[in-house]
Amino acid sequence: MNQKRILSGMRPTGLLHIGHYVGALENWIELQNQYECYFLIADYHVLTTDLDTKDIYNNSIKMLIDWLSAGLDPNKCLMFRQSQIKQHAELFLIFSMFITANRLERNPTLKDQVRDLNLDNVIYGHLGYPVLQAADILLYKGDFVPVGEDQVPHVEISREIARRFNNQYGIVFPEPEPLLTTFPRLPGLDGNAKMSKSLNNTILLSDSPDEIKSKIRKAVTDKNKIRKGDPGNPDICLIYSYHKKFNSLETEEIYQNCKSGALGCADCKAKCTLRISDFFSPLREKRNYYESNYQEVLDILANGENAAKTVAEKTMNEVHQKMNLG
Amino acid sequence: MNQKRILSGMRPTGLLHIGHYVGALENWIELQNQYECYFLIADYHVLTTDLDTKDIYNNSIKMLIDWLSAGLDPNKCLMFRQSQIKQHAELFLIFSMFITANRLERNPTLKDQVRDLNLDNVIYGHLGYPVLQAADILLYKGDFVPVGEDQVPHVEISREIARRFNNQYGIVFPEPEPLLTTFPRLPGLDGNAKMSKSLNNTILLSDSPDEIKSKIRKAVTDKNKIRKGDPGNPDICLIYSYHKKFNSLETEEIYQNCKSGALGCADCKAKCTLRISDFFSPLREKRNYYESNYQEVLDILANGENAAKTVAEKTMNEVHQKMNLG
Repeated sequence: MNQKRILSGMRPTGLLHIGHYVGALENWIELQNQYECYFLIADYHVLTTDLDTKDIYNNSIKMLIDWLSAGLDPNKCLMFRQSQIKQHAELFLIFSMFITANRLERNPTLKDQVRDLNLDNVIYGHLGYPVLQAADILLYKGDFVPVGEDQVPHVEISREIARRFNNQYGIVFPEPEPLLTTFPRLPGLDGNAKMSKSLNNTILLSDSPDEIKSKIRKAVTDKNKIRKGDPGNPDICLIYSYHKKFNSLETEEIYQNCKSGALGCADCKAKCTLRISDFFSPLREKRNYYESNYQEVLDILANGENAAKTVAEKTMNEVHQKMNLG
Repeated sequence: MNQKRILSGMRPTGLLHIGHYVGALENWIELQNQYECYFLIADYHVLTTDLDTKDIYNNSIKMLIDWLSAGLDPNKCLMFRQSQIKQHAELFLIFSMFITANRLERNPTLKDQVRDLNLDNVIYGHLGYPVLQAADILLYKGDFVPVGEDQVPHVEISREIARRFNNQYGIVFPEPEPLLTTFPRLPGLDGNAKMSKSLNNTILLSDSPDEIKSKIRKAVTDKNKIRKGDPGNPDICLIYSYHKKFNSLETEEIYQNCKSGALGCADCKAKCTLRISDFFSPLREKRNYYESNYQEVLDILANGENAAKTVAEKTMNEVHQKMNLG
């Protein structure tokens, strides 16, 4: 098989929300039909910003169930944890010799995090985030990495490291290319441009219809539209963003009726709740299945980890041989 | 067995010289009788300053033969390569989350290297040298690390990391203590205060008596003592330093006769050659043995690596369990 390989991953920080679905999972589910896909539960990456790991195993399994429920198919892709495959760390250590500290300090994503998280002092392993990412990708000889525009600098670091290694020891690695995707971003229930666990403004993939209903009922809408009859502005309303994604057939009608005032927010939210509930109904069914077949989930993970380990070992054997490490 | 553990190591950069013997090996040979000793062939550490690894395997085996010839006893200590035990890299990755980049930048040894090697830009892995060292030590729960005064800051970093890990997840690691040793430093044959491969001023442990003779014949002595009869100054003569180490019985006599002029440099060098040759004669015998029993050397290494791996696995299982990595 000479199918091109994709590597992508997520940090297991808790239950996934519909923003993750729209922003990544939906794309992964397409990709698994076209590529050999490696999907990484990046548990070591969690440590860069949080040393408290008491929930890390549970969060990893929960995320895996989210993935499976969303449609990742263990017959089509490999799912595995970073921490269970020592070769990630081994390649990280080797790659750490192929890039300067200065180059990593100039990484714009790091700069943003340092600002956002108010870090006055960067952790050494956090500085090396893109080096571990390069190891994650190249351990499986990933050809493509699905990323948004903001992640392109990280892929560039992987390319640099691959190139330098190949120049020094002979070709082992591809130079992975970003698979640029415009990921629609869902606004949060509080009107924030981003749906995010830390902002507590999410609809979870695991929310029941009742939970979805209750969350949407409390969501912020156009503040100038106070009661039915008032003309609204769908362009600034987060509920309208949700309609655009989950209710494409009615979008035009809702736009007009919101503007005219004919559609009140309560009715609009009820429609939205229904559509989101319906959209994720197959996911809830699959989740029920996996939650009552927990051993199967663990088996899927064990199989993914065994298969990934085999590939990782093969790559590291090549690396050791090219480096003459014996 | 509740014997305390020692971890020490060397980078395999080429054949060892008598400076290494006096500065480290002689001490190790004592230590193996009193402690459970782990001696590391630090091949990954070589990468921090040199990516050219074509000789790294051969240099590792040569160094092992130097160690065995000098008297390290595979029945008393473990000898193994860093690159063959993935847990070094794994613990390095975890420990990289326990120290800031700033703290590592303040490491005085790094500052010296940056100055000496004229590095305008520190490699990320080089910055992490003390983190990998901490992993090397703590993977085997080393209680003591034999070091000179200048290496104490590195051990301090290991202690900090051990303490932080233990505080975060519960006690896994000892806080290793420096086993301060005053390592006599042999001057080089060119009169430089340090014997060093890069200065090409060494007597190798593997040098034959003829090679020792020829090297010492060309060695620098007190420049004001031109011929026999001229009074010399043993205090500034490197040959006299060698006598002090390898010819203690005659030291006093040589001192007086050099000062008075009664002893000429040629005779003094001949005595010195003889003593050094004699001193290292058992090493040359052992070397002959190991060089003609090469498979035994490889077996010693394989056994050391298997045994070290078992200990390393045990430690990493504890680490994973305490961190709840599953």
